[in-house]
Amino acid sequence: MKWIEGGVCAPKGFQAAGIHCGIRPNHTKNDLALIVSDTPCTAAGMFTKNAVKAAPVLVDIQSVKNETAKAIIANSGNANACAPHDMENALAMQKLAADALGVSPDEVLVGSTGVIGQELNIAKIAEGIPQLTAALSGTPSGSDEAAKAIMTTDTVKKEFAVSFELGGQTVTIGGISKGSGMIHPNMGTMLCYLTTDCAVAKDVLKKALKEACNVTFNRISVDGDTSTNDSLLILANGQAGNACITGEGEDYDTFVSVLKAVCKALARKMARDGEGAKHLITCTVSGCLSEARAEVLAKSVIGSSLTKAAVFGEDANWGRVLCALGYSGEEFDPLNVDIAFASEAGHIDVCAKGKGLLFDEDLAKEILGCEEVIIEVEMNEGNVEVTCWGCDLTYDYVRINGDYRT
Amino acid sequence: MKWIEGGVCAPKGFQAAGIHCGIRPNHTKNDLALIVSDTPCTAAGMFTKNAVKAAPVLVDIQSVKNETAKAIIANSGNANACAPHDMENALAMQKLAADALGVSPDEVLVGSTGVIGQELNIAKIAEGIPQLTAALSGTPSGSDEAAKAIMTTDTVKKEFAVSFELGGQTVTIGGISKGSGMIHPNMGTMLCYLTTDCAVAKDVLKKALKEACNVTFNRISVDGDTSTNDSLLILANGQAGNACITGEGEDYDTFVSVLKAVCKALARKMARDGEGAKHLITCTVSGCLSEARAEVLAKSVIGSSLTKAAVFGEDANWGRVLCALGYSGEEFDPLNVDIAFASEAGHIDVCAKGKGLLFDEDLAKEILGCEEVIIEVEMNEGNVEVTCWGCDLTYDYVRINGDYRT
Repeated sequence: MKWIEGGVCAPKGFQAAGIHCGIRPNHTKNDLALIVSDTPCTAAGMFTKNAVKAAPVLVDIQSVKNETAKAIIANSGNANACAPHDMENALAMQKLAADALGVSPDEVLVGSTGVIGQELNIAKIAEGIPQLTAALSGTPSGSDEAAKAIMTTDTVKKEFAVSFELGGQTVTIGGISKGSGMIHPNMGTMLCYLTTDCAVAKDVLKKALKEACNVTFNRISVDGDTSTNDSLLILANGQAGNACITGEGEDYDTFVSVLKAVCKALARKMARDGEGAKHLITCTVSGCLSEARAEVLAKSVIGSSLTKAAVFGEDANWGRVLCALGYSGEEFDPLNVDIAFASEAGHIDVCAKGKGLLFDEDLAKEILGCEEVIIEVEMNEGNVEVTCWGCDLTYDYVRINGDYRT
Repeated sequence: MKWIEGGVCAPKGFQAAGIHCGIRPNHTKNDLALIVSDTPCTAAGMFTKNAVKAAPVLVDIQSVKNETAKAIIANSGNANACAPHDMENALAMQKLAADALGVSPDEVLVGSTGVIGQELNIAKIAEGIPQLTAALSGTPSGSDEAAKAIMTTDTVKKEFAVSFELGGQTVTIGGISKGSGMIHPNMGTMLCYLTTDCAVAKDVLKKALKEACNVTFNRISVDGDTSTNDSLLILANGQAGNACITGEGEDYDTFVSVLKAVCKALARKMARDGEGAKHLITCTVSGCLSEARAEVLAKSVIGSSLTKAAVFGEDANWGRVLCALGYSGEEFDPLNVDIAFASEAGHIDVCAKGKGLLFDEDLAKEILGCEEVIIEVEMNEGNVEVTCWGCDLTYDYVRINGDYRT
C-alpha cells in the first residue's frame, strides 16, 4: 500500500475539475466541482440519517440504486435544502451536468453544502457548466480544484490516494472530502467523494463502503450536529483490470483495508480541521467488553464540550473525561477505569482505578500542547479497542458559527 | 401564589448560612453552605444519572431514605469526586455538621461542586464549622449567603420563594440553586436545595419532586455535559400547620403546581446564567403528538451547538433549528414544520411547511438581540406543547472552560 498524489484523479480513467461560478455573492473561491469517469462505474453511497434530508441527498439515494454512474457534480455555498425549489434545482443540476457530458441524468450524482433554506442560484451553475467541463483534467490539479470547490469553512483541502496490488494488478483508491462544522457520527457523513479503478460488484462495493465508513467517518465528531446534506459516494470503474471482486475473500479484505485507510486519513483530517480547531483529539477506549460499548464511550469523550474546551486550554482535566464516560449511557464501575494523556511529546497517567494520580503538570502541559492529543481510556474489562476522533472547542468555532449566514 | 423574599429561609423554621472557609487557595468567595430546620423534616432527592457519582451523591442517595432529615451542608470549589479519600471526606463532612448541630449524621445531607479528582481539604471545613453554625440565620440574608456559597462559575445568585394558601394555612416553598456549566437534562440536576414548611408525607414529597423536576430542571441544558455531582434536595418540616398531604388530590395538585413554579424559575435562571451565556434560549415545540416526542425535539434544538452559536451571533439561522429537529432521533416530515423566532421585541415567521420564508432581517436581528430568545416550532401533527430552556454558546464559555482547573 503506497500513498500517492492525485486524489480522485489518481485511479485510471477519472477526471475532475473545480471552478468559481458565483453561487454566493461576494465570494471568489471555487464553488462547483465535477468528477467524471470515462467508462461506466458501479456506485455506492451513504447518507445523512437526519430526518431532514437535502434535495440532492434525496436525489442520490435514488440514483445510486441505478446499475451504473459516471459523474458527480457538487456545489458549495448553498445546501439546496429547505428552499422553495430545492428539488427542482437538484434535478436541474443533475441534468445540466448530464447534458454537458452526454450521459443520462440517471448516471449523475449531485451534492450541495452551505447555508440551509435559501434558494440555490441554478442560473450561475448553468452559466458555469461549459467552463467546468472544459476544465476537466486527469492530472492531480483536477482533483485539487475539485477538492477546493467543495470546501466551506474548511481551512485545508482534504485529498488522499493510495495504490496497492490486487491479483497482480495495481489498483488505486482516491478521495476528496469537506468537513469542518455540523459533523457528528450517525450518518453517511459530510461530503466525501471516492474514486477507484478497482473492479467491484455493486453490492460488494456498498458493503465495503459501509464497513469502512462505520470505523472512520462514523467515528468523528466536530460539534454533535448531523447535517442535512452529509453524503459519502464512491465510483468504481474497473479500469485497473483486476478480477472483479464479487464477494468476500482475500481480494475483498485487501480492498476494504485500503478503503479504510483512505477513509481514516480523510476522517482524521476532517476532525483536525473542525471549525476553529487547534487540536485533533484522538480518544482510544481499550480493554472493553464489546466494540459497540467502546464506541459509545469514546464518542461521548470526543463529543463532550467540557473535554473539548479543556484540550483547547491545554489543561489535563481528566475529570471531564471520566465524567463524559459516565454520562455516555453505558454502565460501568468507575473504580476500574484508567486514563492517560499522550502525544508526540510523551505519555502521562492521570487517573488509575477511578482516582486521580499526582502527575507532572509541566509534562502534561507539554503533551496537551501538541497538535494531536491522544486520550487513552482503559476500561480493564475485556480486550476490545476503539478509536474516535474529534477536535477542541475554541473561540474561533463560536466566531465562525455566530455569523455564518452573512 | 405570591413570590416573596427569603429563599430557603422563607418557609417557617428554616435557617441558613454561608461562609468562606478556604477550600480553594487564592479564592475569597463563600464556599461552605448550611441549611437547617429546627424540627425534623421529610426529605426527598433526585440525583445525577451519570455512572460516575461523586461521594456526596452516594451518601445522599442513602441518607434521603431515612425517615427524617434536618440539615444540608454543601461546599463549592471541589466536587469531592474521584479523589483518593472522597467517601471518607463526604462522611466526615456529614459528621462535622451533625456534631455541631447536635443531630445524628443520618439526618444531614451533603453536597459538593467544583473540580473533579482533587482531594477535598476537609481540615478547612472542620475549621469553618463553628463560624458557619454561628452565622445561621432565619432572615433573607441567611439564604443569600448560602446561595452565594454554592456558586462556582455562576455570575448571579439563584434564589426564589413563593407563598400560597393550602387548607386555610399559608404555606411557603423556597429554594436556592447553582448551575452554570456541565448542565444537561437526564438527571436529578445540578445543586438545588428546596425547603418548605408544608406538611407532606415522604412518598408524596418524592413523587411531587420528581414531577416538578421532570418538567423544569430536566428541560434545561447548558452544554450537554451531565455532572457527577448533580443533586436536587427538598426538606419539608410541616410547620405551616396544613393537614399533611398524604396522597393525590386537590392539596397535592396545588403543592405540585407551586413546586413546579419555583423549580421553573430556578431552572430558567440557571439556563440564562449558563457559562458565558448572553441569551436565554426558550424553545417551545407545539402541535406535537406526544409529550415525550415534543421534549426530544425541543431538547435537540437547545442542545445544538450550531443553533446556540447562531443565537450568540443574533442570526435568525432557522435552518440549524430544522436540522437539529431532524437529528433528534424522532422521525417526521419536514414539510409539516413551521418555525418562528420571538422575544419582547416581536415575532417573526421564518419557515413555513419546511421551506424558508422571506423575512425582515432587521426585525429578526432586533428580536434575537433580546436577552430571552424564543424559538417556536409547530409540528402540525397534534396538540401537545413542551418548553425547554438553554443558552447561547459564546467566547466566554470557551474561555471559562479552557482553563477551569487553574
